[in-house]
Amino acid sequence: MPRYPDTSFSVQDIGGSVFTALAHKLASFEGEVFPFHVGDTWLEPPEGCRMEDLSVASHPGMHRYTQPHGHLPLLDALSARLEQRNGVETTPANILITTGATGGLGAIMGALVEPGDEVLLVAPFWPLISGIVRSFHGTPVAVPILQHVDSPEAAVELLQASLTERTMAIYVNTPNNPTGRVLPRPWLEAIVEWAARNDLWIVADEVYEDLVYEGEHTHCRSLAPERVFAAHSFSKAYAMAGNRCGWVVGPRNEMVELQKIGTHSFYSTPTASQLLAVNLLDGRGARWIVGTRELYRRIGSEMATALGIDPPQGSTFLFFDAAPHLNERGLEGFLSDLADEGVFLAPGTSFGPYPTWVRACFTAAPPEVTRRGIAVLAEALGRA
Amino acid sequence: MPRYPDTSFSVQDIGGSVFTALAHKLASFEGEVFPFHVGDTWLEPPEGCRMEDLSVASHPGMHRYTQPHGHLPLLDALSARLEQRNGVETTPANILITTGATGGLGAIMGALVEPGDEVLLVAPFWPLISGIVRSFHGTPVAVPILQHVDSPEAAVELLQASLTERTMAIYVNTPNNPTGRVLPRPWLEAIVEWAARNDLWIVADEVYEDLVYEGEHTHCRSLAPERVFAAHSFSKAYAMAGNRCGWVVGPRNEMVELQKIGTHSFYSTPTASQLLAVNLLDGRGARWIVGTRELYRRIGSEMATALGIDPPQGSTFLFFDAAPHLNERGLEGFLSDLADEGVFLAPGTSFGPYPTWVRACFTAAPPEVTRRGIAVLAEALGRA
Repeated sequence: MPRYPDTSFSVQDIGGSVFTALAHKLASFEGEVFPFHVGDTWLEPPEGCRMEDLSVASHPGMHRYTQPHGHLPLLDALSARLEQRNGVETTPANILITTGATGGLGAIMGALVEPGDEVLLVAPFWPLISGIVRSFHGTPVAVPILQHVDSPEAAVELLQASLTERTMAIYVNTPNNPTGRVLPRPWLEAIVEWAARNDLWIVADEVYEDLVYEGEHTHCRSLAPERVFAAHSFSKAYAMAGNRCGWVVGPRNEMVELQKIGTHSFYSTPTASQLLAVNLLDGRGARWIVGTRELYRRIGSEMATALGIDPPQGSTFLFFDAAPHLNERGLEGFLSDLADEGVFLAPGTSFGPYPTWVRACFTAAPPEVTRRGIAVLAEALGRA
Repeated sequence: MPRYPDTSFSVQDIGGSVFTALAHKLASFEGEVFPFHVGDTWLEPPEGCRMEDLSVASHPGMHRYTQPHGHLPLLDALSARLEQRNGVETTPANILITTGATGGLGAIMGALVEPGDEVLLVAPFWPLISGIVRSFHGTPVAVPILQHVDSPEAAVELLQASLTERTMAIYVNTPNNPTGRVLPRPWLEAIVEWAARNDLWIVADEVYEDLVYEGEHTHCRSLAPERVFAAHSFSKAYAMAGNRCGWVVGPRNEMVELQKIGTHSFYSTPTASQLLAVNLLDGRGARWIVGTRELYRRIGSEMATALGIDPPQGSTFLFFDAAPHLNERGLEGFLSDLADEGVFLAPGTSFGPYPTWVRACFTAAPPEVTRRGIAVLAEALGRA
């Protein structure tokens, strides 16, 4: 066991930031920066849904705790919305408000994972999920699927090949970060059916549900409400990632266990952030997202065209193989050369076994800045 | 291992809320409520340090993420303050901004604890610390000290008796929740010296450092900066618990491991909350706390007098033994009878092996309300 001066060995095994290697270049770069490596937006949140729209006069006590599992009016508004979207009976007891989807996925994994348990991660995957599983002394097992096979049957075959006696859950992220793919319903049905047959929990990461440009988002919970925990967030669609407000929806008996982890890792979600989420759900968010989605779709398609790849179906990312452009300095050299021109990308290794791939976010900078960055990137790839 | 429909066995062992049993009474109570069971305040935060004082015009991008380890101006302001208070060299690399002290203590325990490790908890202790250790599959070991012995030597003897081969850290909370005691420097010196001799990490919970009415707060970090992680918060002193903003300070090499847990459990601390903390540290908090401390001290002393116990030395709580007032219905009956009169208290079992004790918060309701509640409580105890 670790004792001073040792710390937890599981945690030592968690990698650092997606981007540590290039962080010093970013900090000292003097020209125009194209921050395609982050997952964020240039937009400010909808009017009426900003911190300045809250006041102590209108919301006395708004700097105090809410109930640990969530502000009651937010739980009410969300359960109505979710029941409508999923077609599954949903009450506040099915929901935990969390510090973003990160807090939500932490609560899920914390409530499920015992030391040594294996969690299958449909790859490519959101970078932090692997470390979340390790935080609780579980073992993440990447199953590269999305760039590798083109049928649900083939996907299930790959999952089956990764199943062991220690497997207890599967994580799937759609719309997908980093690929920008929206998993078709038959894929999710096949994955869920296979997971149920093998007594696995299903952890669905659906934070980009409102950023779909092509196809249709399938709510995993609608397929197997008894075994799906779905993590969602106000961060991505509504330009408020810094508010740290999201939620998990799942089977009510087990939500009690998730609430324990939430209470013991962040206690309650920031009160002001929850009040703004209530404002969003009164229609202001729904009106705002229509125009935002179109803005994102347009710049995402422009970036895809410049890179010579398919436009994104959803999310705020594109993922492409840089193999043809790598020299003996490998991906690190490639990313470093681009950074010297102000273009910062995230290395594919953060998303699974993708040592030659990179992820680019098309919403981190205003479109006119992004366009200039796209031109620099296209030139570097010999596509200008 | 747990598989559907089982969840983590360690988490099943974590108790529910301090207060679950009486929650339904509270929800349906129709008279005036005296919420002495919570740890909160009737005050609003200092002027200039409220959400309404932030605007997108003054802080463009204020709803986006900060750096995961913290907003850089806050890290700078805090390191200057901490270095001055502790007399120990402190840079931003020694600090992690967290979702309150709960997030901070989660980051500490997550970074230290391997499954089966034992953490000694100086009891009585803050209720959530036990569940935080369990979240990461460690074993909390309560060591009842504060109400039991009256010298540092005797305290160390009790710690020594609880030491096993699996012990790897000790948790100590001063000013103390629930007892309202401020541990004298010689006690902390003895505990730290003993911990160092036994190669233990030291986890100091100092969230009430600015609420001291008698005696002087000792910063644990000043005694052993190489092995102390101290959790602090803006929540308690500055009436902003709902903002979820605190910090951990500790040895810089190991802070990297804490940052990993923070990143994977809440990602970053809410941006607006960090901006308000910067405002606080410019002097507005220091001016505000003087009057607030006096308000709290006064009502705390009134409650202590009514209960016939010593006034609080710090924190916002009193802890007293209700044994003389219990009948065959035990503590549960006692709390239930009081709840029927609107007085809600927290049961001693949440704070360690204290089955006949109760905790009362004297800052949760405005003083005039608290005074009426004190009268009801004193009457029930036969002291009116």
